[in-house]
Amino acid sequence: MPHTRPTPVPGNLTQFEHLALSSPVNLADGHARQELTPGQSRIVGELPALWADVLARPVEEVEAEAYRTYFELLGQYGHRLPSTRVLSCYSSSVAMEIFARSLAAVADTALLIHPTFDNIPDILRGAGLALRPLEEEALHGGDLDPAVLRSVGCVFVTTPNNPTGRVLAEERLRALAAQCAEHDVVLALDTSFRGFDTRAQYDHYAVLDGSGCRWVVIEDTGKLWPTLELKVGWLVFPEPVGLPLSEVYSDILLGVSPLVLSMVRRFAEDAAGGGLAELHRFIAGNRAVVREVLAGVPGIGFPHPHSRGSVERVELGARSALEVWSALREHGVHALPCRKFHWADPARGEHGLRVALARPTSSVLAGARALRSVLLPGR
Amino acid sequence: MPHTRPTPVPGNLTQFEHLALSSPVNLADGHARQELTPGQSRIVGELPALWADVLARPVEEVEAEAYRTYFELLGQYGHRLPSTRVLSCYSSSVAMEIFARSLAAVADTALLIHPTFDNIPDILRGAGLALRPLEEEALHGGDLDPAVLRSVGCVFVTTPNNPTGRVLAEERLRALAAQCAEHDVVLALDTSFRGFDTRAQYDHYAVLDGSGCRWVVIEDTGKLWPTLELKVGWLVFPEPVGLPLSEVYSDILLGVSPLVLSMVRRFAEDAAGGGLAELHRFIAGNRAVVREVLAGVPGIGFPHPHSRGSVERVELGARSALEVWSALREHGVHALPCRKFHWADPARGEHGLRVALARPTSSVLAGARALRSVLLPGR
Repeated sequence: MPHTRPTPVPGNLTQFEHLALSSPVNLADGHARQELTPGQSRIVGELPALWADVLARPVEEVEAEAYRTYFELLGQYGHRLPSTRVLSCYSSSVAMEIFARSLAAVADTALLIHPTFDNIPDILRGAGLALRPLEEEALHGGDLDPAVLRSVGCVFVTTPNNPTGRVLAEERLRALAAQCAEHDVVLALDTSFRGFDTRAQYDHYAVLDGSGCRWVVIEDTGKLWPTLELKVGWLVFPEPVGLPLSEVYSDILLGVSPLVLSMVRRFAEDAAGGGLAELHRFIAGNRAVVREVLAGVPGIGFPHPHSRGSVERVELGARSALEVWSALREHGVHALPCRKFHWADPARGEHGLRVALARPTSSVLAGARALRSVLLPGR
Repeated sequence: MPHTRPTPVPGNLTQFEHLALSSPVNLADGHARQELTPGQSRIVGELPALWADVLARPVEEVEAEAYRTYFELLGQYGHRLPSTRVLSCYSSSVAMEIFARSLAAVADTALLIHPTFDNIPDILRGAGLALRPLEEEALHGGDLDPAVLRSVGCVFVTTPNNPTGRVLAEERLRALAAQCAEHDVVLALDTSFRGFDTRAQYDHYAVLDGSGCRWVVIEDTGKLWPTLELKVGWLVFPEPVGLPLSEVYSDILLGVSPLVLSMVRRFAEDAAGGGLAELHRFIAGNRAVVREVLAGVPGIGFPHPHSRGSVERVELGARSALEVWSALREHGVHALPCRKFHWADPARGEHGLRVALARPTSSVLAGARALRSVLLPGR
């Protein structure tokens, strides 16, 4: 049983996820691993035809169709603004790396949402930026402290956040963008989980464009559909934005695959035709499975009852998440201990475990049952 | 005719390439854009079946099959060494970015081959490294100056080089690796164009492993086959290598698409069955077309007569490559002025133009004829 071998505790969340890749029940990473729907399976069957189709057309056209279809599926219309640039990247993390390198050319410090997935602080720090935490409560509670805004070059917000699922409301985005404009601070949004939550599908670009602030948005197709890691991360921003995004982009890539762009367009069309609502029902169903299976376990809680994202955070009471993670592995089940999400204060994640929901329901059920048996040994 | 619009001169080679993407005759970038062979077309037709196949197997298995098949196609056996790690990246440039970030954690300065494609110096500098040029003549001529080696943390060599096609011979690699071992300098190789040249297909890993130096190799499938930018860049290195490669990798990605890995394996199998030799004949044929069409144009030269890479450098005599590039655009033809390859001394690229050969022969012929007519106006 290779999954029971002693292993050093991973150094970051992605390394935890890597350990899980070939486990019998992988509820670790937030990538989409549910089964294809019949409509999506038909698109996979079309791949050879899509290949021939993109060969016959200019890549700019294939690219613009892809982002237009995807953005509009999710209520976003920023690409229609004349000043907007859209750069297609291999993934949201590659977009993040390009953003971080660009930001580091003009700023020293970023104010970053806390908690959030740890590769965001790691990439920003890797580019040489110092970070200050922006607590979710402070972000959602009202205006930010002007003294803090004067001390940073960027405010970076993940919305919906990971793993909390909290969504930045339209009026809060408007006020934050106005503050960023006032202090000439770049406002950056990572909206990778937007597709799961209609509350995050108001047109962010109308708000940003109206604010006069310098903004950058990272959009991502990678969390939504089980496309075997074929995905696009988009860097969206107005010109001029005062960051060398296009230059750093051209250091790293000429462009993404037009086949992937074309496939994304087809998945977005399928989603617009009913697939997205079906996905929302599917995730809600898997969330209910986790909550029902764990119901009645003493001390267990769900701190984000309104989350609609494809991950669910479970609070384990007095138990250490790392110990529970370790015990779960003996059942061949992987989930994600939450310490590393709390990049500025890991202790606050000590008792949290993130469970992925974008999985076949049978896997979610098996994982939840294993978790229950770990939490209630002997029953 | 949008291609005749005045445009600012691009800031780097990739931006030149981007301008060319939708031109009638794009001989700018070094990506593979020839037609699929019948064998390759059959693999594209298999994509839906490959999708189903990879879903049924552990991703580690799919990944190991891909790099084993690809590396062994090109005479490389480093993956069989017990200490070797292989990290799959979206592209060679993403591998390069991860390498640069890792190197910058332990070193200040790199000795970099000169000339070479400009995103290599740009990525290294972007990570904060200072660069010193290593002239091709010095690299191939004999031992490096020990004083220079004492002043750098890394020697970075592109072999076969781009755009010169020069290959680091086995005895030179052995001597260089021994010098790097002696001075505890990391030896990094970018072998992205290896597939085109059998002289670059001796087992580099046997030499590196025997040297005792710390080494990193970037292998790349992206230049060989017209796979619509579906490709893999591999970071290959021994553990321990004293660089945080795995850590930086996990900041940026969990893994590449198993569908792409599986497709790469199938293309490599097809190449091993005769496709690679066919590709070599195809590129040689396109090279001959360029040389024949331009034969007799006064002042024109081919400074790298022995190159087998998928690009050809043309020396334009007294003419400015930028002026020729501009005139070619009026014919709807794009090629690549060579100034930026000479990252430490752009003037030496003033009269060089790089022409891509991994294109349909009809495009190469049309481009070469346009170049001839630009160089011989009125004839």
